[in-house]
Amino acid sequence: MQRTVISKAKPFVQGAIIDLYCKTFSKCLTIADLGCSSGPNTLLAMSEIIDAIDSTRRKFGHRSPEFRVILNDLPGNDFNTIFKSIPYFIETLKKEKGDEFGPCFVAGMPGSFYGRLFPNESINFIHSSYSAHFLSQVPPGIENNEGNIYIAATSPPSVDKAYLEQFRSDFSLFLNSRSEEVIPGGRMVITIIGRRSSDPSSKECCHLWELLAQALREMVSQGLIEEAKLASFNLPWYAPSRKEVSASIQEQGSFHLDMLETFDVNWDADDNSQNKNYVFDKIKSGKKVAECIRAVTESMLVNHFGEEIIEDLFQKYSENVGEYLVKEKAKHINLVICMTKKEGKLD
Amino acid sequence: MQRTVISKAKPFVQGAIIDLYCKTFSKCLTIADLGCSSGPNTLLAMSEIIDAIDSTRRKFGHRSPEFRVILNDLPGNDFNTIFKSIPYFIETLKKEKGDEFGPCFVAGMPGSFYGRLFPNESINFIHSSYSAHFLSQVPPGIENNEGNIYIAATSPPSVDKAYLEQFRSDFSLFLNSRSEEVIPGGRMVITIIGRRSSDPSSKECCHLWELLAQALREMVSQGLIEEAKLASFNLPWYAPSRKEVSASIQEQGSFHLDMLETFDVNWDADDNSQNKNYVFDKIKSGKKVAECIRAVTESMLVNHFGEEIIEDLFQKYSENVGEYLVKEKAKHINLVICMTKKEGKLD
Repeated sequence: MQRTVISKAKPFVQGAIIDLYCKTFSKCLTIADLGCSSGPNTLLAMSEIIDAIDSTRRKFGHRSPEFRVILNDLPGNDFNTIFKSIPYFIETLKKEKGDEFGPCFVAGMPGSFYGRLFPNESINFIHSSYSAHFLSQVPPGIENNEGNIYIAATSPPSVDKAYLEQFRSDFSLFLNSRSEEVIPGGRMVITIIGRRSSDPSSKECCHLWELLAQALREMVSQGLIEEAKLASFNLPWYAPSRKEVSASIQEQGSFHLDMLETFDVNWDADDNSQNKNYVFDKIKSGKKVAECIRAVTESMLVNHFGEEIIEDLFQKYSENVGEYLVKEKAKHINLVICMTKKEGKLD
Repeated sequence: MQRTVISKAKPFVQGAIIDLYCKTFSKCLTIADLGCSSGPNTLLAMSEIIDAIDSTRRKFGHRSPEFRVILNDLPGNDFNTIFKSIPYFIETLKKEKGDEFGPCFVAGMPGSFYGRLFPNESINFIHSSYSAHFLSQVPPGIENNEGNIYIAATSPPSVDKAYLEQFRSDFSLFLNSRSEEVIPGGRMVITIIGRRSSDPSSKECCHLWELLAQALREMVSQGLIEEAKLASFNLPWYAPSRKEVSASIQEQGSFHLDMLETFDVNWDADDNSQNKNYVFDKIKSGKKVAECIRAVTESMLVNHFGEEIIEDLFQKYSENVGEYLVKEKAKHINLVICMTKKEGKLD
């Protein structure tokens, strides 16, 4: 899933980094990945960025720039596993690109991207994939969203408003922080889940969570989860529309919005037109989607409901997803947001 | 132990950083800790360095500089535990020093300090405590050091020579790498175990390991370890003399040696003249020393001899140390090496 999203965003990421490189021919490029997580795709985007610069500098007959890669995620992320893979990552780059490549330094920077992470004007390029749709907190004032865990058809309008407010405030904090860190003329390419509809309770972004809410409600009715526990749970997540994103960028004012594209990825990313051998199997598909969602929500669900409900919950969720996919080829709507830090200081 | 060493080296570290700050009044200081390890003392030296700068800038009525702290150790180090403690570390600094403090960014950089770690001329101050006495590898050509695990009274002279050669080559690589990374005028303060004697098989640096070799030989005689296994094990470690250190620095040529001081710390660091309530107990002391040595050697011993011998080995070692401390108040000889990166480029 994450791999498919990165590969679909690749032309935008590579376009932006090549354009940046060709405008400056910097001898040293500092590239940060925000919300890098820890898994097989952690270094994928960074490696694609390095590939793009390396082949461009060859075309111009330039020497390799120095690469400074900074991997960011929350302090609880498993950096140990990433760090153990770095020597192999750098060896592989050197083998592929020859002795003239690099040097390439890879560091880890723990912290929340809803706040300052890096020194002033120290970053040339920021990449972030599938992280900035997570909010810094559950929006306050949505105690009335009972039985739901995100905006749903049955949510009162005040819930939509609270989510949008939280997104606006978080995204503005994100942009403010990055505006201090990114060198004027530097770039950002951010991929998040969003929506096409102007309605925040549209099925295209909400149904993924509605199926999880269904599983939770089932467990409430079976007496496995207390009703009050479910009533007090909401996800710190928001799928904005293009209009909401571009309004926030314009309002904050430090970045020029170069491009804002939308692309779809099926919930089961293997189910696509390129994959001729794909045979739909609702059990397999349900499991795959449930595993993805589990990877990003497990820790908060455990925090709220306890460890013991998790297996059962994701078993139910995986069945709900499988059944739903029989009826509908569900897709995530993705927004890829390409920005350039404006030149000159703002007041 | 590590805490005592850091506190004894503190005047040298603080002296060097204050001197550096007063010469430049930099608005941004990048400070790296090489071989930071992971434990209660990981951030201690960094925090003392920040303290020294903060109180100095107050005396001058200056604004707080920006701090960029980089923690380095091998990729196998437990960075996760360190990273989880960073938010608290920064919060505490802000509380102690007020809102005008910082900003302070703390990053992790995994890799061996026997090679490049950081970009060119990017570091103002390098600190390293109790790490650079570890060599990059066991010196080659010491197969004849059978029954010993380091230079010992019974080692052939070729063993002394091989260890010295390895130290020279490693320390030169260390200085070469740092010379590219440290800004001209920047400082390094390195604390290592060394020796006073010109004889590298002197008891003052070797007996710590001789007692471990004794424990291993005992286990060989009990049939718990194969003789050939012990014969092929040697430590990648070297305790140089002041003369060896200063000769290496002069030969490499990039750093001016400002100070090279020697101080002693008892093997059992709690046993010192400041500690009036201290009552010697050979079992307790033996255990404490054995725990320290275990922390830094366990992984290599497990790699070579296997997991199963470790408990028994350190039980025996702790007894050997206890018995030895009855006869002799053994001390580590420590070298603290203060250097300044020379101005101007070398060819």
